[in-house]
Amino acid sequence: MKFFVIFLFLTAGLTKASVAQTKIKYINASALHIIGKLQEKAPAFQRLDTASYPGLPPAVKRLLTQSAGMAVVFTSNSPAIWAKWCVSKAKTYDNMTSIANKGLDLYVRKNGQWQFAGVGRPSEQCSQYQIVKNMESGGKEFLLYLPLYDELFNLEIGIEEGSEIMPAPNPFRKTILIYGSSIVQGASASRPGMAYPARLSRLTGLHFINFGLSGSAKMERPVAGLVAEIDADAYILDCVPNSSPDEITQRTSYLVNSIKTRHPKAPVIIIQSIVRETSFVDLQWEKRIKLQNESMKKQYDSLCQKGVKGLYMISADGLLGNDHEGTTDGTHPNDLGFDRMLQKLLPEISAILKKHDVL
Amino acid sequence: MKFFVIFLFLTAGLTKASVAQTKIKYINASALHIIGKLQEKAPAFQRLDTASYPGLPPAVKRLLTQSAGMAVVFTSNSPAIWAKWCVSKAKTYDNMTSIANKGLDLYVRKNGQWQFAGVGRPSEQCSQYQIVKNMESGGKEFLLYLPLYDELFNLEIGIEEGSEIMPAPNPFRKTILIYGSSIVQGASASRPGMAYPARLSRLTGLHFINFGLSGSAKMERPVAGLVAEIDADAYILDCVPNSSPDEITQRTSYLVNSIKTRHPKAPVIIIQSIVRETSFVDLQWEKRIKLQNESMKKQYDSLCQKGVKGLYMISADGLLGNDHEGTTDGTHPNDLGFDRMLQKLLPEISAILKKHDVL
Repeated sequence: MKFFVIFLFLTAGLTKASVAQTKIKYINASALHIIGKLQEKAPAFQRLDTASYPGLPPAVKRLLTQSAGMAVVFTSNSPAIWAKWCVSKAKTYDNMTSIANKGLDLYVRKNGQWQFAGVGRPSEQCSQYQIVKNMESGGKEFLLYLPLYDELFNLEIGIEEGSEIMPAPNPFRKTILIYGSSIVQGASASRPGMAYPARLSRLTGLHFINFGLSGSAKMERPVAGLVAEIDADAYILDCVPNSSPDEITQRTSYLVNSIKTRHPKAPVIIIQSIVRETSFVDLQWEKRIKLQNESMKKQYDSLCQKGVKGLYMISADGLLGNDHEGTTDGTHPNDLGFDRMLQKLLPEISAILKKHDVL
Repeated sequence: MKFFVIFLFLTAGLTKASVAQTKIKYINASALHIIGKLQEKAPAFQRLDTASYPGLPPAVKRLLTQSAGMAVVFTSNSPAIWAKWCVSKAKTYDNMTSIANKGLDLYVRKNGQWQFAGVGRPSEQCSQYQIVKNMESGGKEFLLYLPLYDELFNLEIGIEEGSEIMPAPNPFRKTILIYGSSIVQGASASRPGMAYPARLSRLTGLHFINFGLSGSAKMERPVAGLVAEIDADAYILDCVPNSSPDEITQRTSYLVNSIKTRHPKAPVIIIQSIVRETSFVDLQWEKRIKLQNESMKKQYDSLCQKGVKGLYMISADGLLGNDHEGTTDGTHPNDLGFDRMLQKLLPEISAILKKHDVL
């Protein structure tokens, strides 16, 4: 992974400071180091250069322009950090905060740990916001998560004039790809850094890449080809919620075999669908999810019987706890639900990754 | 508490159903039973008739028109529930979901427990939404939480034609008033039923009333008078976050004494301010919160020394856990933060209430 060890020359103009007499220097974030992309050569704030994949379903292409799971890593000795950014005109989803949907989320490394520092609150299509201020003096390492559910057109990071900003190396090692639904993409985390792949990265030190496709994780063949094309140390498939029981039956073995053909040593971990809270009162939803999870279990058993090695399945049991309070809308975990998912997923995923020398 | 034991005659017109051929009957929710109000005679969907309190600060009056903590209780045998409602034109706050800010949150009683059933997703100023469908047959008891951060102008609840709907009695006993800041009002719970006073009600069976005043819980004399005027079995004061250290010094004893004069036997529980996550990186915030909490501790100690009985203080230590992930924006708890608050508050509050025979 490339990164720069020299100071960047900060040529951006001075803008009116939000604190009286403080002058702010802005630098284009694309000149810094952006992690979490599916493809290095993709446009700065997009996960993939979808133009080079004409066969992808349109919904998948559109979703891959959204910056879910991506973050800018940099060091700076500025006591305050600002941002200026523009996203699309799309309305914020009713089950998400604007901060998660269109905003920014800053972490700072303290005593070796990534610690929440502040958010970039979006206003209109283009926003300007002071994310944090009055920090103790000295150089620090930052991780700025980008919007989960919108296309980011541009982003400038502001520091106090006289301070410095530099790109920093990826703080996370290896590559773990998580292909999945809106839940992977981050609905309904309260801010971008609370999406569960991002939390897994901070908890393990591994680089989990967010291949979440809201409502469109259906294992279509071109998407299976793309998943397999990405060179990762492990693959997590959390795509049951978006696929019908029949689609699961028809498409799972192709997806798993595509990955295993190109990456025979990489473990593949399937996660069953969370039992949607809605399904405890809606009898039709209850049936559908049961069928989805049974269908995936059959595919998993069949692949194992056919001799596929390094394939694992994590069951849905207890993923959201048992008090039915873990979602925002009956489907999408709130931060409490995500935390409960992690309490189950983290030890199970860690054990598998250790077995395969990834962790 | 009054409630009706006869069926209501459903005179509302039939509207176009969202499910083909299903006909929906709507009834005005003000004809049902609404709990969580500060005053029975207040307008249907407001916590207080502010016109009868001209001395209240304008911000407090405005906030008391918001339906935080209020809920409609009813029974119905309809297999699906709809709602039509109108709120203000105000924009959704960037640190809240529209569901929490302007939406509805339905619980159903199952095996004696209140269980999440579905949400009313707001669209524009006026919304219509099917909250839940395909429920098992039979009569059920429902609790529909109203918007946390908006004024609700009207609300109609829809059931399938041929089904019945009736007001139900308040499922919660006694009265515990929680006076406090935006955190009490519910920022940033993911949906109305996740505000911490609402969760306390479901967890204890007691009727916690939400006197949360976003940003405006400053213990002014007219507000102290209003708090004391409300006839409750216990009073919780979570108002440190909005008051300056000086305001805390000047106003706390007046508030506590006003309550104690009118309700000498009711316990009064002060909660220190959560340590805002922002304060771990912003040195100025760190100082301010330390001073606020120290100031409140001094007031508490002084009142105890003066012989005030039944006064308690819960410290801020560990209220949000220790990984700094418990807020949406550095100040307002997300559902994970609220859950951690409850893990500390529930046993401490329960012990005090038991001591005073309230629980």
